[in-house]
Amino acid sequence: MTNVSELQQLIESEISHYSALWDQSHPVNLYKPICYALKVGGKRIRPLMVLLSYQLFKDDPEEILKAAIAIELFHNFTLLHDDIMDKAEMRRNQPSVHIRFNENTAILSGDVMAFLAYGLLFEIKSERKADIISQFTYTAREVCEGQQLDMDFESRSDVTSGEYIGMIRLKTAVLLGCSLKVGGWLGGCDEDVAQSLYDAGICMGLAFQLKDDLLDTFGEEKAFGKIIGGDIISNKKTFLLTEALQRADYQQKKLMGNWLSKEIFNKEEKIHTIKAIYKELDIQTITVNKINEFTSRGIEILESLPVAADRKEPLMELVRNLISRNN
Amino acid sequence: MTNVSELQQLIESEISHYSALWDQSHPVNLYKPICYALKVGGKRIRPLMVLLSYQLFKDDPEEILKAAIAIELFHNFTLLHDDIMDKAEMRRNQPSVHIRFNENTAILSGDVMAFLAYGLLFEIKSERKADIISQFTYTAREVCEGQQLDMDFESRSDVTSGEYIGMIRLKTAVLLGCSLKVGGWLGGCDEDVAQSLYDAGICMGLAFQLKDDLLDTFGEEKAFGKIIGGDIISNKKTFLLTEALQRADYQQKKLMGNWLSKEIFNKEEKIHTIKAIYKELDIQTITVNKINEFTSRGIEILESLPVAADRKEPLMELVRNLISRNN
Repeated sequence: MTNVSELQQLIESEISHYSALWDQSHPVNLYKPICYALKVGGKRIRPLMVLLSYQLFKDDPEEILKAAIAIELFHNFTLLHDDIMDKAEMRRNQPSVHIRFNENTAILSGDVMAFLAYGLLFEIKSERKADIISQFTYTAREVCEGQQLDMDFESRSDVTSGEYIGMIRLKTAVLLGCSLKVGGWLGGCDEDVAQSLYDAGICMGLAFQLKDDLLDTFGEEKAFGKIIGGDIISNKKTFLLTEALQRADYQQKKLMGNWLSKEIFNKEEKIHTIKAIYKELDIQTITVNKINEFTSRGIEILESLPVAADRKEPLMELVRNLISRNN
Repeated sequence: MTNVSELQQLIESEISHYSALWDQSHPVNLYKPICYALKVGGKRIRPLMVLLSYQLFKDDPEEILKAAIAIELFHNFTLLHDDIMDKAEMRRNQPSVHIRFNENTAILSGDVMAFLAYGLLFEIKSERKADIISQFTYTAREVCEGQQLDMDFESRSDVTSGEYIGMIRLKTAVLLGCSLKVGGWLGGCDEDVAQSLYDAGICMGLAFQLKDDLLDTFGEEKAFGKIIGGDIISNKKTFLLTEALQRADYQQKKLMGNWLSKEIFNKEEKIHTIKAIYKELDIQTITVNKINEFTSRGIEILESLPVAADRKEPLMELVRNLISRNN
């Protein structure tokens, strides 16, 4: 069994391999931004999940690297387009593609990344290939639905935590579920095991996104790679905000409402005020509890799988890392 | 054998069927724009080509409607994104999606259309399904490359007619080639016939786009549905312009160069001047000859196919209509 850091090296070297290929592809203005986006990096969680899930059953992860990279490519396609839509100027401490190049580039290079992902999936040798591409397609559609809901929530002030969880399930969690399921299928697992892997991935995805929300408000700027308080500044409906609005008393609700409706404001002051309310309401603890709830459920599902415990350990470790991370 | 107008009705009714479905889908802000884009219509050439190609071999076109609609969906996805990139505010006499809704909508609803297209392809029942989806994926990537080249050409003044033909091959023709090939495969044709169909589609696509260029400058505004002279105003590198620049004498080249570099100008005057040069150089005839050249080659390929002449007639008719059209 290949350990996590070796798997990460495999992923990076495969990404480098394709980047080198695309770096030479024409038209350069279409393919260079793809190399840029991939080089900027990221945690590569999704391809790692594909490989770790496969390793529950089989020992030659290099055989299925294409599937892992396809999912990472798809993920990066969504980042290119989301960053335009969200007007996010930075990504992983670097200018986003639409800033570094321009919006047209981010649209079109993003599009081609989605098709490159399909191209890689087609090169997979597996009797489950059709299922994999079908699941991938369904998931891609759900991810778009999630992004739309996220944007819809921007203009609403009555988003509940339940709606929020439903949104991040689509926007973030289903791709993690898909990653584990695809890895399992490639490993030759049964349908019920594949479904459990998917469910575990959903739990991991929900926990992962809530942790992201937490870090955006309560993290360390340098480690996180984005401005702390960005969600507060942009009135982003996060679990922290939906919970706070739900639990606030009359005075707190009024104060939050005032800040949420201000068009011109001092950013530091807004962050300070909203964070203070979050602290009064113990939102940090509530969020941590929710993260732990999803994590435990994910771990339980993994524990229940009919697979030797030592084979599951790297995946368990990943779950733990996802929620203890500070970036 | 179903005739062309019945096939067109089949296509419209299938599109209405899916539109009704998506009209009820959530989130509405994601799916409504898809219905809008499909309702605005268009010539539905690509799905018709799928069905006509299939009918060279088989008689039940309703069996493969999903493949036809998938390609039309993909085509509309490219229109949504291209119209943002090209800042095209009108499409078929109606506001483009990014104008009627907004840019984010055009990006994301566009994305989901591409995945819906894949979803439909997956529902096809055919032993060639994998080949079809693979060809579709490869074609999609080429279409993106074509759009990039088109944008790259905007900032260049030395684009040759050869480069231009290479660009429209990717941007427009490969999808027509793909449509005929997919129809043929679904009809059960041999590989060499499928390849001939693809080649015929390429010729039709090239002729089709050159006709479009011609109409943009020399067409009738009302019939064409777009402003006549739009390509001239925006300095778009079309076959007309690349040929004119190649054939112009010193004086004409200087005059054209002046108009191409003006940032502020009277639109009517620019159109009038450039059209006058086109007329001096007989660019209209040169373009018509090129269109006829591609059309003849396409017709020849179709004639050479080992299929009864009466089965080919509707496809031949389509080729003739594509180049005699005024919209």
